[in-house]
Amino acid sequence: TGLVHIKNPHLDLMEEDVLYHLDLGTKTHNLPAMFGDIKFVCVGGSPKRMRAFAQFMQKELGLAGDGEEPVDICAGSDRYAMYRVGPVLSISHGMGIPSISIMLHELIKLLHHARCRDVTIIRIGTSGGLGIEAGSVVITDRAVDSSFRPRFEQVVLDDVVVRSTELDQDLAQELLACSKETPDFPTLIGHTMCTYDFYEGQGRLDGALCSFSSEKKLEYLQRAHDAGVRNIEMESTAFAALCGLCGLRGES
Amino acid sequence: TGLVHIKNPHLDLMEEDVLYHLDLGTKTHNLPAMFGDIKFVCVGGSPKRMRAFAQFMQKELGLAGDGEEPVDICAGSDRYAMYRVGPVLSISHGMGIPSISIMLHELIKLLHHARCRDVTIIRIGTSGGLGIEAGSVVITDRAVDSSFRPRFEQVVLDDVVVRSTELDQDLAQELLACSKETPDFPTLIGHTMCTYDFYEGQGRLDGALCSFSSEKKLEYLQRAHDAGVRNIEMESTAFAALCGLCGLRGES
Repeated sequence: TGLVHIKNPHLDLMEEDVLYHLDLGTKTHNLPAMFGDIKFVCVGGSPKRMRAFAQFMQKELGLAGDGEEPVDICAGSDRYAMYRVGPVLSISHGMGIPSISIMLHELIKLLHHARCRDVTIIRIGTSGGLGIEAGSVVITDRAVDSSFRPRFEQVVLDDVVVRSTELDQDLAQELLACSKETPDFPTLIGHTMCTYDFYEGQGRLDGALCSFSSEKKLEYLQRAHDAGVRNIEMESTAFAALCGLCGLRGES
Repeated sequence: TGLVHIKNPHLDLMEEDVLYHLDLGTKTHNLPAMFGDIKFVCVGGSPKRMRAFAQFMQKELGLAGDGEEPVDICAGSDRYAMYRVGPVLSISHGMGIPSISIMLHELIKLLHHARCRDVTIIRIGTSGGLGIEAGSVVITDRAVDSSFRPRFEQVVLDDVVVRSTELDQDLAQELLACSKETPDFPTLIGHTMCTYDFYEGQGRLDGALCSFSSEKKLEYLQRAHDAGVRNIEMESTAFAALCGLCGLRGES
């Protein structure tokens, strides 16, 4: 049917669903009218960049004619910023798995309440490249954890549930095909490693704490590269797991 | 000496230290002049709230006289917001352990470069209460993980290092004593549970995914309460571990 899957039997029994961190809700907003025709959702960490992306989409889609600037739909909350341009939603998610998870739970419910169909979601945030030219775009075939395993460990109450982090391979190929039209920067498909920490977790030598040598760092990054990792960031495993479970066609 | 401890032998060898996510650096800014006399750092998730807190401090410290509004010192970055009022720094950290960790690494290096002494750091963010009156203030004696253990598992490269999450008990008692002067809301000392997830991790029934019953949720929260947990949030274990290792007097 192309609809988003909500896997929560409690949700139908609720009189109202408040999407708290997005400053939206089923009683306060007409979500089908506001979002029912959304087909693409693009997410990234920084609110300013997601605003700049919305302005870019305005131009690309020929919707910039009236000179109107995109308005932050979540302006009542300072947790995330959200802009809409035609069928495209541009949303920031902050930094790290906990931050993107809160946004994705509420976004997925938003798409469900709005009865959206056939939605594609793409994370377009920054990442650190591994053995590739600076400025390259990495299309993720598989999100992996800090041990290079394609899995996301979700704590549910005090149980640990392991979830798959496969992304949509057809979409990855489509995006790679699109990149042929923009030869200004190299584009490749590879694994994306997702860490919980920016400094100690990604082998940086310039944090407030650093207990490893430069050699140990390089040895770890070499092992990551040997395992197929081409870039490192902090959200992809949770993104892949949540989108996969809820039937969203996702890429990162 | 009261100085902040940096545990990173590489840092002294660097010609410049760019505090990227704070939009500050040792070559671009005179950090001792800007921050050398800071004595208190207050952190919370939301940038707007940390701005409101800075305005509140202006009034409390009698520094609001000139009508000047606090200026965001990190305005060039949209990752965090930072305001200074007299000896108090007010900084936002976003949501979740990865987000607060990036900020704390850069803040601790900032205090080190500025040669600050005897700094007290307090997290004043929101949290969900457990078996206590709504609006209560919980002063954390111990931050615990989702299994109620006072520990933080930090991934360093692909090793897991376990760190202590003890907070400053004298500071907790001092804060409790201060609360006697403001009887408007109940204040208590208790354990604070820190989770990686807001929905499935904290027993919420209204996420996009929910695989547990209302009974299972209540049973988990009861066990947390029996273990001494009085509130739940998403940053305290990393906050306690980093502040403890770097010699910052910390409370949450």
